[in-house]
Amino acid sequence: MIMKYLFTNDYSEGAHPRILEALARTNMRQEIGYERDSFCLEAERLILARVGNPAAAVHFVHSGGMANLVALASMLTRAYESVIAADTAHIHVHEGGAIEALGHKITLVAGLGGKITAEAIRAVMDKHLPDEHMVLPKAVSLAHATEVGTIYSLAELEAIAAVCREFGLYLFVDGARMGTALVAEGADITLRDLGRLTDIFTVGGTKNGALLGEAMVVNNPALREHFRRHIRQRAAHVAKGRIIGIQFAELFADDLYFDLARHSTSLAQRLRTGIARLGYKFFSRSPSNMSFPILPNAVIEQLQAAYGVYVWRGVSAEASVARLLTSWATPVSAIEQLLHDLEKLS
Amino acid sequence: MIMKYLFTNDYSEGAHPRILEALARTNMRQEIGYERDSFCLEAERLILARVGNPAAAVHFVHSGGMANLVALASMLTRAYESVIAADTAHIHVHEGGAIEALGHKITLVAGLGGKITAEAIRAVMDKHLPDEHMVLPKAVSLAHATEVGTIYSLAELEAIAAVCREFGLYLFVDGARMGTALVAEGADITLRDLGRLTDIFTVGGTKNGALLGEAMVVNNPALREHFRRHIRQRAAHVAKGRIIGIQFAELFADDLYFDLARHSTSLAQRLRTGIARLGYKFFSRSPSNMSFPILPNAVIEQLQAAYGVYVWRGVSAEASVARLLTSWATPVSAIEQLLHDLEKLS
Amino acid sequence: MIMKYLFTNDYSEGAHPRILEALARTNMRQEIGYERDSFCLEAERLILARVGNPAAAVHFVHSGGMANLVALASMLTRAYESVIAADTAHIHVHEGGAIEALGHKITLVAGLGGKITAEAIRAVMDKHLPDEHMVLPKAVSLAHATEVGTIYSLAELEAIAAVCREFGLYLFVDGARMGTALVAEGADITLRDLGRLTDIFTVGGTKNGALLGEAMVVNNPALREHFRRHIRQRAAHVAKGRIIGIQFAELFADDLYFDLARHSTSLAQRLRTGIARLGYKFFSRSPSNMSFPILPNAVIEQLQAAYGVYVWRGVSAEASVARLLTSWATPVSAIEQLLHDLEKLS
Amino acid sequence: MIMKYLFTNDYSEGAHPRILEALARTNMRQEIGYERDSFCLEAERLILARVGNPAAAVHFVHSGGMANLVALASMLTRAYESVIAADTAHIHVHEGGAIEALGHKITLVAGLGGKITAEAIRAVMDKHLPDEHMVLPKAVSLAHATEVGTIYSLAELEAIAAVCREFGLYLFVDGARMGTALVAEGADITLRDLGRLTDIFTVGGTKNGALLGEAMVVNNPALREHFRRHIRQRAAHVAKGRIIGIQFAELFADDLYFDLARHSTSLAQRLRTGIARLGYKFFSRSPSNMSFPILPNAVIEQLQAAYGVYVWRGVSAEASVARLLTSWATPVSAIEQLLHDLEKLS
Repeated sequence: MIMKYLFTNDYSEGAHPRILEALARTNMRQEIGYERDSFCLEAERLILARVGNPAAAVHFVHSGGMANLVALASMLTRAYESVIAADTAHIHVHEGGAIEALGHKITLVAGLGGKITAEAIRAVMDKHLPDEHMVLPKAVSLAHATEVGTIYSLAELEAIAAVCREFGLYLFVDGARMGTALVAEGADITLRDLGRLTDIFTVGGTKNGALLGEAMVVNNPALREHFRRHIRQRAAHVAKGRIIGIQFAELFADDLYFDLARHSTSLAQRLRTGIARLGYKFFSRSPSNMSFPILPNAVIEQLQAAYGVYVWRGVSAEASVARLLTSWATPVSAIEQLLHDLEKLS
Repeated sequence: MIMKYLFTNDYSEGAHPRILEALARTNMRQEIGYERDSFCLEAERLILARVGNPAAAVHFVHSGGMANLVALASMLTRAYESVIAADTAHIHVHEGGAIEALGHKITLVAGLGGKITAEAIRAVMDKHLPDEHMVLPKAVSLAHATEVGTIYSLAELEAIAAVCREFGLYLFVDGARMGTALVAEGADITLRDLGRLTDIFTVGGTKNGALLGEAMVVNNPALREHFRRHIRQRAAHVAKGRIIGIQFAELFADDLYFDLARHSTSLAQRLRTGIARLGYKFFSRSPSNMSFPILPNAVIEQLQAAYGVYVWRGVSAEASVARLLTSWATPVSAIEQLLHDLEKLS
Repeated sequence: MIMKYLFTNDYSEGAHPRILEALARTNMRQEIGYERDSFCLEAERLILARVGNPAAAVHFVHSGGMANLVALASMLTRAYESVIAADTAHIHVHEGGAIEALGHKITLVAGLGGKITAEAIRAVMDKHLPDEHMVLPKAVSLAHATEVGTIYSLAELEAIAAVCREFGLYLFVDGARMGTALVAEGADITLRDLGRLTDIFTVGGTKNGALLGEAMVVNNPALREHFRRHIRQRAAHVAKGRIIGIQFAELFADDLYFDLARHSTSLAQRLRTGIARLGYKFFSRSPSNMSFPILPNAVIEQLQAAYGVYVWRGVSAEASVARLLTSWATPVSAIEQLLHDLEKLS
Repeated sequence: MIMKYLFTNDYSEGAHPRILEALARTNMRQEIGYERDSFCLEAERLILARVGNPAAAVHFVHSGGMANLVALASMLTRAYESVIAADTAHIHVHEGGAIEALGHKITLVAGLGGKITAEAIRAVMDKHLPDEHMVLPKAVSLAHATEVGTIYSLAELEAIAAVCREFGLYLFVDGARMGTALVAEGADITLRDLGRLTDIFTVGGTKNGALLGEAMVVNNPALREHFRRHIRQRAAHVAKGRIIGIQFAELFADDLYFDLARHSTSLAQRLRTGIARLGYKFFSRSPSNMSFPILPNAVIEQLQAAYGVYVWRGVSAEASVARLLTSWATPVSAIEQLLHDLEKLS
């Protein structure tokens, strides 16, 4: 077998051709730097039109990890404040201690299918508020889609937003994979809902067809003031900020952003249906572009000879959770080949 | 007058056409992420061949501010350690307190034409070493070219490196504008010298023709271990790290990096000669792509109607230091037009 | 019922009379400041004689929380490093996020009766070492006695020290309640063992008869260099450091430190025997001066009318864990009265 | 000559006898911990009666460095905020980078006789407010008395407070040597003025007769909320907080605090008069308990054989600034002897 396709990630290729064309088309136009150029302003306008909140601000940073860092840096002000997150959260597990390096604790709650609940937030607050020897949570951070591909329902997000308001907590939604979360089967949250319910949310470009870039939508006026100083301090600025603005302007000029997400999500659905047909179960009920089949270790190993497959975790001595991602660039043929090969191995 | 040209910065355009072509050419090749792809490895190989130290490591980050942050995060380990820098240093003045946000003080010395001296470093150490109520410097940070366009001589850098060795200080050279510093008239420092004399130095792409990206050359083996964890923690990773690798591989595949620097530097020299001929003096003796003429405020204001011109600082009630930058993209005609217009205003 | 006695803490009274006498006796002698006076040097000498490591250094700080903070600040140097601790650890739960405010994550392991195990440390390292997106543990922190009154056996501590050596982890032992841990029934760890097996350990004064003060024994030469700069930076210095030195010199001039611990520990043992006789069970197998009986809520409430009793946590709708502490100052009569009243309520 | 007296510091002895007596008298009374005991509440009441602001809160910490750290931790909330201080400020020079370890820059202004001016604050704000690449000052920190013994006039403090209000800056006054500043000749600032004009100020005990302890008067209601969580996070709590409360209750039960300050200040005045009579000049116009005569190096060296004398800095190859401190415990005879010996050496 030769290597056929990497399902390891949704950022294994470059950018959608329209994005490369836009970069080439605008290349020699002189612009000011640091995401204040006319392309970034246009991208902001296009995104806010969909969010439905013209008073919000949009800022652009180069990566999802940076968007998380800047958002939480802006929310956690008093030194003793913490952020509530699920124990599977990327900011807790896989960002190298970036939040703690800000000086703030992550107050963990047990995730339910990767999701945090309003009840868990309330329980944390009831415990921490009266005890001055503890940190005091000031923000809630969740990912939509989550790290295990699940998505929140509108009812769940409304409940979380309500408990946040009750306790004066900021609500941050990490949308590194926002595209797939918005178009997945059963999804009932819209950009307008996020504009209405969150203090900051992000719209990821890197994992949905851009070379790089995340849009940060800052809804809460209290956070907008001097927000760019946080970007500066975290070294998040891209001098030629135009390169992110151009990409987002292209992605939101029409429905490109959503079309790309539909492509990756529908292919993942097709993959899951095929895998289920072979009798395998799944670690999480993901409707997004991330699939988590539980496969025999021997099968995974044989697959890995020809495909990029990430092992999420073991479940027994003989089986593990595999993680398979599809992207805007994944060809249908790659799905069919994988299912074909998997069937032979099963 | 209509706006003719921005001399405000050397990052006002996109990227050199060869870079856009390289991005397009490689676009659909699947690669692993986080600057571990084959393009980044190739770029590392090409850079180290010029540095002459195959044992060094090269890491790529998206911006000069981030390169400074990651380098100093890796050097300042004990909490009480500080970094010595000139009082004009970018890390002190214009990075929003990023170093202090790491938890470390910047110990300032008076800059001489933007440059730090071996003597000043020694004086700082003599004062701080015996007093346990003070911070203890552990690194020296300097920019080459400096923030006012000047460059170090090899003798100056050797002297600084010697005093660093004597006191156990790491030496970091911020090369956001390394290209112009290497090719400027009178320059006698090479990449090999930097590989030999510094612990970490950077080679800036953003200000020399790339869309974005800085190469960090880590010479000191003690700093190489786990270096990528610093990149992770500062949220410096670009998931599609390939996009930086592709650019640096192109810039160093032949002499493109140096050719672009020669273009911007020679145009700046032409600009300075022209301005001097009109009788104006300069704030700093810059041989690089940055020029700092001292002009009457009225002249600056009239120029600003047609050109992007940054006012560096006032020098009297009537005159100020203007900052003019040229880049790989600056046309000769823009220089001639500016000199022509300036002559009319003088 | 009138308030009879506070069992809430072991720091409800002032200091042992010999300590007050020593402060008065030495009051007008002039000394230099910041724990460099002759009393601190004498206290260091007396403690190191018992530790059996004349090459170690002893530093004095005002509180146990500060001792933890300074010790971990000295151990966690690279920004991505974390400290491993039990999920019941004081540094995790009750120090207001102090360690995270240093910039470092606490990597939690499930405590076993408040204790961390060598196996749990190994499991953490096996997971974190190969994944560069995670923090990298560099230290292990444990309390002896623990937060729930349990103590480590020498075999357990030897195993932990061995796994620490294997992975290059520093070992810190928080001895805020070291006195009771050393003299408790079944205790087989000595100060010499701590000097031999740990990098830093502390000997608490506050909870064993002093007005305030903790001795930090720094065994590892690599941590001794510039250690006082950490004390300075954390604002841990006491200008009249003599007042801590005088107290420790008095506590260790003979066996006073151990005699006071024996008093509090034997009274706690008497209390536990009496409570067990009444048929109650205990939350933890504490042989120290901390007792954790599980009592009906109604009983706790009635006790609280006359005694200071802290509720550690609920165990059901009807019962909770009470925490009862004895100290050097607790009279035998208070124990007898409490047992008498508890019997009437049962 | 034998060592006659240390003029090195004002904390070379223990505590005023009345304080030791108070500690002994109250020793066996049981109290709750962490500065919430009845003695701390009484001390708070007594101090606020003099401040004239019953709505303020008083918190107690063990040292002046810690008071500075906690105050600034409470004031600097957004990560990019800085504190303005004189370049001679203790927080800048001699606290081991404690403020930077909080993550915040100290924005320096040139001190005038150790004092900061309203004009300098305004100049800093005019420069930093419009430039988003710079830090943004949020607080002003000054010491009264300053590090060189000078004191502010009420007019100066009013002007500083006004410019702070204009720019939304918090005002912090470090009163480690507040006693001498209030009673010095020419002093026109009262505790009521400090309660009216500052957001937080401190009243130092360590350097005016206590064993240890600083009172932090928090006037601004916005800073009072959760203030104790800052104390907790910085490990500033003293478990037996009573020992600071008892001392301040004694110092402010009548005029003891002021009487002790008058003693040290009048002796310093006597010392300065005597030194001036011998023809020596002074480095600063200090009316406080700190004196800074400029003496020939040979004279200083001979004095140091018999007295504790700190050399503040050199002024030429032959002369230096000596720093001489008097305290509540300094006997008149020590002053006379020093003047006598100095006369012989001159």
